[in-house]
Amino acid sequence: MAKELKELTPRGENYSQWYQDLVIKADLAENSAVRGCMVIKPYGYAIWEKMQRALDDMFKETGHVNAYFPLLIPKSFMSKEADHVEGFAKECAVVTHYRLKNAADGSGVVVDPAARLEEELIIRPTSETIIWHTYRNWIQSYRDLPILINQWANVMRWEMRTRLFLRTAEFLWQEGHTAHATREEAEEETLRMQGVYARFAEEYMAMPVIKGRKSESERFAGALETYTIEAMMQDGKALQAGTSHFLGQNFGKAFDVTFIDKEGKSDYAWATSWGVSTRLIGALIMSHSDDNGLVLPPKLAPIQVVIIPIYRNAEQLAQISEKAGQIAAKLKDLGITVKYDDADNKKPGWKFAEYELKGIPVRLAMGGRDLENNTIEVMRRDKLEKETIPCEGIGEYVANLLGDIQQHIYRKAFDHRTSRLVEVDTYGEFKERIEEGLFIWAHWDGTPETEERIKNETKATIRCIPLEGDPTPGQCMLSGRASAGRVLFARAY
Amino acid sequence: MAKELKELTPRGENYSQWYQDLVIKADLAENSAVRGCMVIKPYGYAIWEKMQRALDDMFKETGHVNAYFPLLIPKSFMSKEADHVEGFAKECAVVTHYRLKNAADGSGVVVDPAARLEEELIIRPTSETIIWHTYRNWIQSYRDLPILINQWANVMRWEMRTRLFLRTAEFLWQEGHTAHATREEAEEETLRMQGVYARFAEEYMAMPVIKGRKSESERFAGALETYTIEAMMQDGKALQAGTSHFLGQNFGKAFDVTFIDKEGKSDYAWATSWGVSTRLIGALIMSHSDDNGLVLPPKLAPIQVVIIPIYRNAEQLAQISEKAGQIAAKLKDLGITVKYDDADNKKPGWKFAEYELKGIPVRLAMGGRDLENNTIEVMRRDKLEKETIPCEGIGEYVANLLGDIQQHIYRKAFDHRTSRLVEVDTYGEFKERIEEGLFIWAHWDGTPETEERIKNETKATIRCIPLEGDPTPGQCMLSGRASAGRVLFARAY
Repeated sequence: MAKELKELTPRGENYSQWYQDLVIKADLAENSAVRGCMVIKPYGYAIWEKMQRALDDMFKETGHVNAYFPLLIPKSFMSKEADHVEGFAKECAVVTHYRLKNAADGSGVVVDPAARLEEELIIRPTSETIIWHTYRNWIQSYRDLPILINQWANVMRWEMRTRLFLRTAEFLWQEGHTAHATREEAEEETLRMQGVYARFAEEYMAMPVIKGRKSESERFAGALETYTIEAMMQDGKALQAGTSHFLGQNFGKAFDVTFIDKEGKSDYAWATSWGVSTRLIGALIMSHSDDNGLVLPPKLAPIQVVIIPIYRNAEQLAQISEKAGQIAAKLKDLGITVKYDDADNKKPGWKFAEYELKGIPVRLAMGGRDLENNTIEVMRRDKLEKETIPCEGIGEYVANLLGDIQQHIYRKAFDHRTSRLVEVDTYGEFKERIEEGLFIWAHWDGTPETEERIKNETKATIRCIPLEGDPTPGQCMLSGRASAGRVLFARAY
Repeated sequence: MAKELKELTPRGENYSQWYQDLVIKADLAENSAVRGCMVIKPYGYAIWEKMQRALDDMFKETGHVNAYFPLLIPKSFMSKEADHVEGFAKECAVVTHYRLKNAADGSGVVVDPAARLEEELIIRPTSETIIWHTYRNWIQSYRDLPILINQWANVMRWEMRTRLFLRTAEFLWQEGHTAHATREEAEEETLRMQGVYARFAEEYMAMPVIKGRKSESERFAGALETYTIEAMMQDGKALQAGTSHFLGQNFGKAFDVTFIDKEGKSDYAWATSWGVSTRLIGALIMSHSDDNGLVLPPKLAPIQVVIIPIYRNAEQLAQISEKAGQIAAKLKDLGITVKYDDADNKKPGWKFAEYELKGIPVRLAMGGRDLENNTIEVMRRDKLEKETIPCEGIGEYVANLLGDIQQHIYRKAFDHRTSRLVEVDTYGEFKERIEEGLFIWAHWDGTPETEERIKNETKATIRCIPLEGDPTPGQCMLSGRASAGRVLFARAY
């Protein structure tokens, strides 16, 4: 039976297998012929388009414009910022030649050794280097600043262990790259964009996040400070959902980007960069979905409402279709995306299962009795609850219901996180409780050595040093040395 | 003076230099550190975003969805379709390694010879091969068809002689790739998308086009038929602005994509592909712009109206700003994009020149006398004509004016093309007149040999065999042999 073909491994049995089943069976993405690179299928891409549109609007509201920089970066650029090269130059796709030729034995095409590049080019793993090289010519005076640019692009990092959406060799993202005249302004920008990401995660993805900054060892390669938003997945693991980097003058110095300030003095420009990627689709899935399939927040659902007719014959279908058409028109007027599925080669039960799997927030079904009573059956995907309501006022009812679903799934995720967020004071308790899949607030002495030992012994990392709330000093759970305040530990994706 | 810095080489003096000056000085794009790859600057990218939005809406209205396929293609895929490999595999960027390492002498990073790929990967020059490899698993039955997918992506072709927007190694585009159960359906789709491109060119870009099909030698590598839209630039040269390919079963066979049809028989799927690229920005510039700068059709102008205050003192500026704010609000309510430029470090004359250069369709200026008279000065960029009109009803006035500008620049381009479109009957006359920069309708015997001789001797190519109008048979201007109808010759970008 079709239903069975679509069945998922239950989360309780194997969370990781459930995730993979869901991505495949809900037609979101699949692995491609190229190791580590995915195909994003139309339904998965439609979610990305909704994310892009919302984020792009938020970037523009905060004064940013889009531009496009080259895919390929000269190898030598990567070496100009010492930390950056350590972090990014190593595992990357290297272009060495620019031509193929027919094989002498007629077996196909081979690399033409005569077409070797003088300098190898790498496929961008991130674009700080090529962009700051370009900014050098754009910036002379404080009047040229700030530059507030964002780029939507594909990037590539040669990951060895990949997982659809969460970690892939090629992924889609946006990367903001801004240049400023003062340190303060760049720091403000870094925090502003972390705030934009947090708002997007909470208001659109219905995914609560903890805002903080990274410890030194978890910082972006080349940053003075990395700000992050951290979300809890259903299994209690953390997912870094967006980062915003204060780069200081590191790239200004590496690419010699100077400007004359208001006082007539020359200084290096101050930089930030910030990005989110298709990884967010993985985060979205793992935040809300269940053993029946996807649960999508209405604000990011490509289809918000599906209407399914249940009929005995063509005459009844015609009557239902007329009424459903009126309802669909009302919903569209309210800005709601609706699909009417009257395909006759699938049974209603099959369709119900299919749209549950796809996470359509609201399902409307209309049958013969509904026609008589002028009613319609409404099912909300998040709670899987049904009720039958009058057709009058259905538009407003559904609009309110979508708002309610958006809030409810946020609340559910928030409560789930609250139930798994604990404070721990001793390393013994930490080692025990981290196994439960928790976010743990604990004291840390601030040294990379302690951090690394904890990581090696427990697989937990410092997700962030929180930005909000007053820190209460204490003693490191491992070394017993002074701690400025609790930091957030978890195992992470 | 700032004005002089922005001055362009006049078109009459050197059209090619004028184009390059304009792209650079209007801040549309620039060359990057990577040979043949451009940086698309924010203003140029904003035009691309307007194009994308309009095209994407048209694709979706015609039933298409977006998806994303890998950037990299295994080398062996390119050899599977015989014509395709000849056309595309030769000049392409080849990834041979996946790691860099520190140079032994500390001089930076070098390719790690241990990290050589088993099979080289090429950066997609177009995606038929990777997509049809993927479709193989998506298509089993006629019920899985049609597949109507579009992709927005970057592609790379190792061009030796590049020109901003018109011909670059990396460019941005969309590529539609559809699969169908019947030949008829695929042919219909090919023509439908040519129609979408023609409508976009004429209604949005205000650029008249001639629809036709390509001669065999100008076809896409792997296509049975290539349909094109051809536009005339101001210098009389042709620019191929979009192509739609009927691929027959070539890729179905090359990648073994079969399906069971309604009668239970197995057949290969039928394919189309179609694309337009950032080249359209070059076409837009060369269709309408003048010696003062860009002329943008209102439907694609990132800013449609700019308002500039002309004031003697702060008090007057405050009064003008209040009034300008009201006007801007009215225009925004009508869906018009407005910028109010009250920057105090630039003089009005400088701003006037700057916005002419940037092609803002309508400029409003308000000074002290306007305040007294409740009037405003309106300048339309296309005709560079000014008039002073009452502030009452300014919203509707500007909305109508934008519509009028859109029509006028289309009409102007259309009339220009008409004036340079001739019929020629002898090869002697052809060789003479092609020097004038014309589109020439002439008879051709249908052979690649004749076509090639004409190309070698005159640099003119067959732009298309027209789709519209009844063909009148005649005699080839070169060979004297029978011709089924006149075809369009021109020199081309």
